[in-house]
Parts: sequence; C-alpha cells; structure tokens
Amino acid sequence: MGELDFIAWIRQQSATVPQVQLPIGDDCAALAWQPESPVLITTDMLLEGSCFLREAGPERIGKKAMSVNLSDMAAMAGKPVAAVVSLGLPRDLPAQWAKDLYRSLHQQAAAFNTIIIGGDTNSWTGPLCVNVTLLGEATGTGPVSRSGAKPGDQLWVTGPLGGSILGHHLDFTPRVKEAQLLHSLVNLHAMIDLSDGLSSDLHHLCDESGCGAELWAESIVSTPAALQLQDSRSPLEHALHDGEDFELLFAVSEADSMKLQNGLFRSSGMNLYHIGRFIAEKNVVLKRQGSSEVLPAAGYEHQLRS
Amino acid sequence: MGELDFIAWIRQQSATVPQVQLPIGDDCAALAWQPESPVLITTDMLLEGSCFLREAGPERIGKKAMSVNLSDMAAMAGKPVAAVVSLGLPRDLPAQWAKDLYRSLHQQAAAFNTIIIGGDTNSWTGPLCVNVTLLGEATGTGPVSRSGAKPGDQLWVTGPLGGSILGHHLDFTPRVKEAQLLHSLVNLHAMIDLSDGLSSDLHHLCDESGCGAELWAESIVSTPAALQLQDSRSPLEHALHDGEDFELLFAVSEADSMKLQNGLFRSSGMNLYHIGRFIAEKNVVLKRQGSSEVLPAAGYEHQLRS
Repeated sequence: MGELDFIAWIRQQSATVPQVQLPIGDDCAALAWQPESPVLITTDMLLEGSCFLREAGPERIGKKAMSVNLSDMAAMAGKPVAAVVSLGLPRDLPAQWAKDLYRSLHQQAAAFNTIIIGGDTNSWTGPLCVNVTLLGEATGTGPVSRSGAKPGDQLWVTGPLGGSILGHHLDFTPRVKEAQLLHSLVNLHAMIDLSDGLSSDLHHLCDESGCGAELWAESIVSTPAALQLQDSRSPLEHALHDGEDFELLFAVSEADSMKLQNGLFRSSGMNLYHIGRFIAEKNVVLKRQGSSEVLPAAGYEHQLRS
Repeated sequence: MGELDFIAWIRQQSATVPQVQLPIGDDCAALAWQPESPVLITTDMLLEGSCFLREAGPERIGKKAMSVNLSDMAAMAGKPVAAVVSLGLPRDLPAQWAKDLYRSLHQQAAAFNTIIIGGDTNSWTGPLCVNVTLLGEATGTGPVSRSGAKPGDQLWVTGPLGGSILGHHLDFTPRVKEAQLLHSLVNLHAMIDLSDGLSSDLHHLCDESGCGAELWAESIVSTPAALQLQDSRSPLEHALHDGEDFELLFAVSEADSMKLQNGLFRSSGMNLYHIGRFIAEKNVVLKRQGSSEVLPAAGYEHQLRS
C-alpha cells in the first residue's frame, strides 16, 4: 500500500473504530470480523472522461466514487463497514485538489458509518482514476441476491427515474438505509441498484432469476431532470434507459407488495413506486395504454455534461 | 460491479471454492469468513507508463498486478484468500489482449490458492490501469506488523537485491510461502516487503518501530541484474536503493537469528541473508570496511525498460 501525507489524519479517524485492528500504514490493514456474517465485497473504478469530468470538482467526484460502491452494498441490503481507495492522480493535479478528493471520499464513507482503512496513491501522466473497494456485513436474513424473483412477484423501485446526466449521477444518495429497512420489513426476493438503467438492470434481474417481467408505463415516474431534457427521447424513455439512477429495483411477493401498498414504509420518508410484476415468460414487456411491447435491454450511453 | 463476457468462466472457477457464497455477477461478492482471523486487506493500482510498459505484454502485466498484492499479504504473513480486480482498458486494446490479461491475473491468483471473486471492467481513452484488492487471513500468532522491531533484533532478507528493472519487477515470486514458514519457525518482530527499496523500506520499519538499524555492506548480496547494470551506481547502490525487489525484510530476536544462522530453514530451499541489526539510535547506518555512514531513505525512481 502506498502512503499519503495525510496518513496520520486517516489513522486518527480509524483509531476510534474498534473493528480496525491495523489501519493504513502497514502492508495490509486488518479488520476484525463478526463470525455470523460473510464478507460482502464490491469494487468500482471511476475514470475521468468516462464516469466524470474533472470540472465537476473533487468534492462531487469523491462523493460519487464512494457512493457507487455504497449503492452496490445497498443492493445486497449490506451494511458497509470499511473501504480501501486507490488513486491514479494526473501529475498536473494540484495537491490541494487531491486532498479535497480524499476528504470527500472520507466524508461520504463516514456519512454511512464506513471508514477508509487503506489505499494506494500514485501519480502518472494519464487522466484521473479512482478505485474504491468496499467491505460490508450482511444484515437480517443475509445478503439479497439478484436471482430470487419468481413469476407473480411484484416489482418496486425506490424513486423517480431518468435524467441523471443533469447532476444526479454525481449527487445521488445511495439507498443503504432504505435497503436495510426494506430487508427488515418484507422478504426481498431479489434486488439490484439501477446503474445501467431500468431496462438493462431489469433484464439482469430477470436473467438471474430465470423469469420475465412486465413494466407498467403509467406507474413509472420520471424525474424533473428527465422532463427537462429537450432531446429526441421522451421522459418515459429517459426513465427506462438512462443509467446511473442508483435507485433500488426489487421483487417481493404479492402479500408483501400489499403491505408496501398499504403504507408499511410511510413513516420512514422513503419513496416507493410499484412499477410492474414478474411473469413466467422470459421477456421484459412494457405495458402502455392497454398495449404491450417487448422491451430490449438498452441502457447507459450518456454524454457527460457536468 | 461491471461484467465481462467471461463471467461464466470465472463463476465456474469460484463455484468450486466453498468459501465463495456469491461470486461475480451480483452487486457484491460474498465470502464466508473464519471467526478466528481478522480480514487482512490490501490494494494496489498499477498504471501504464509508471508501473509497466504495455510492451511487457498481458501475461507479465497481469502477473505483476496480482503479485504486488500477494507480496503485501506476505509482508503480514497473511494467507491470501480472494481478490477483486478493476480494469481501465484503453479503447484501442484488442479484446484478446484484455482476456489474456485477466487470465494471467487469474493464474497468478490460483498459483497461491486465491480466487478472483469479482471486479469492474471499463473502457476509456486513457492508458491501461489495473487495480487489485486482495483479502487474506492471518496465520500463526496473527498478522506481522512493521512496528515490533527492538534494539538488538537482527535484520534478515529473503534474497539478493537490486536491478529489478531488468525484468524481476514483472516476474518475481511473491514470498507468501516463505513468510508463513518463517512465521511458524520464529517470532517475527516486524516485517515489510521491499517495494520502495532496501534503504527506504528499512526506514519505514525503523520509523514504525521507534528505533534505528545498521546495515552490513559486506553481507548484502546484489543480484546478477544489479551487477549487469552499467551505470553510475555500484551493485551495492542498486541493492540499497532500487525498488521492486519484493523480497521480505524482517526482524527477529538474537536467539531466533541464531536458529536461522544454524540452518533451521535450509530444507525449505529458502534463501536468507543476515544483513544487519537494529539499534537504539534512530538512524539507518551503513557499515562498510569498518567505517560507518548515515544512510538516507532514497528508493525507487526507476526508468522502465521492459
């Protein structure tokens, strides 16, 4: 592991967490582990020009790099615990910029009770590259997979969709708390976070579960950003195909769906939308005004603007 | 996590490992964990032009990317268990090249009973970027840190040093087995893997342990590569200051040092060199032909050639 000139600061942070037995500074960090839970692990690499533009600034880029991993953890209803961060810093990047980036990564981790316990920092002639690996514990009855949806299950999502390119892809809140709450209230048969886009990610859920799904166009709520985008796509198309919503898409039984419908979650302040159901036929079908069309997977090809 | 077109292949590999509860394909991988051991975690990012040249080829680059992490695990006497891999692939990189890279990462992991359980694959306009995060278990009496060396302890290293730029920095064998064997034979007070170079990494050991050390110039063995390099530095200077030897540098008591001296390890085929001792004065001193000089930390500034 490489070292940063603010290792002392990171050490100070992690010294207060009893689980951290050896923080950054040794060749490995060491983390005490609860015997009851498997280690959940996810990793995401964000690349300049592809996942963000440098103009977005260190605060938003750092926040996004941590949040996309937190969102993967949320998709399994996992409890994030600790992260390691690797940076490939362009040689022309001011030192203060790099520190602000790291500070933002740390702050977003801390907002979810997560600690950065190590990393590797390099400079090079290439563009900015940020990799986060996040470890977490399973909660409740264990990690939620993508593969447990059954025909007859109901399909829900945690928010309005589309238009993330106008800023949401940098500033979203990973649905960590919502996932744990849902996992405690109902039996989550399958769950995924929307990174590729509703149509693609629903195909992932269906492929893994060995079934199909129908989506109800009238029940899908587009974001104000999706409505604001003036291009060849309708707000519904943005909601269906834009990437990086980072809402949770999940399957529950009809009985659990009724509980959600009846407001089981209302006091939590969580938004939930009932947008379809799973079917035996292995297709994703869009139902609109009484007609049906097969919906191909077609997500995420956005042009960065901010 | 992103997906590769050879996910099926990776899944097949990891399906045979009972510890892997949910391999690549879900948003997180899940790994069963032994209650007795903390999770050891390390991460390293290798960047084209800085850590390797693309001409080295996918096999050697993949091997290095996994090996540098295995070497960090060795430095704690850890047992590597599972890895996640993130790739930033240049758009012009042939698909077969990327597959060969991944296959090499997998093969080097497998050579150390380690499985790749997930990852994130991206393409971009930047150079090649490979990040590996490795998880491992502590062995024996627990993870070996950098901070336990005491004045009077003896300093050993697992191999000849210097000149890694001629190829060793790509082709080295991480000292995973040697570390576990040493950890079972003697009480390792402190250990580090030589990535920055002997002088720098010995300073790290001393700083963390709150003491100093003397190095015996006549006991340090230079590699054939260090002898072969025709430049302004002597073979000894290469051994002292070149980076990426990836041998283990460690501290043991005088009694344990005697055991090693008397050939405790001989039947293992391991090479060991007794190159100095720890002292109370907080300096690193080079002893040569009866004279002493203070040795500053001055490691790793190599120009890539292969």
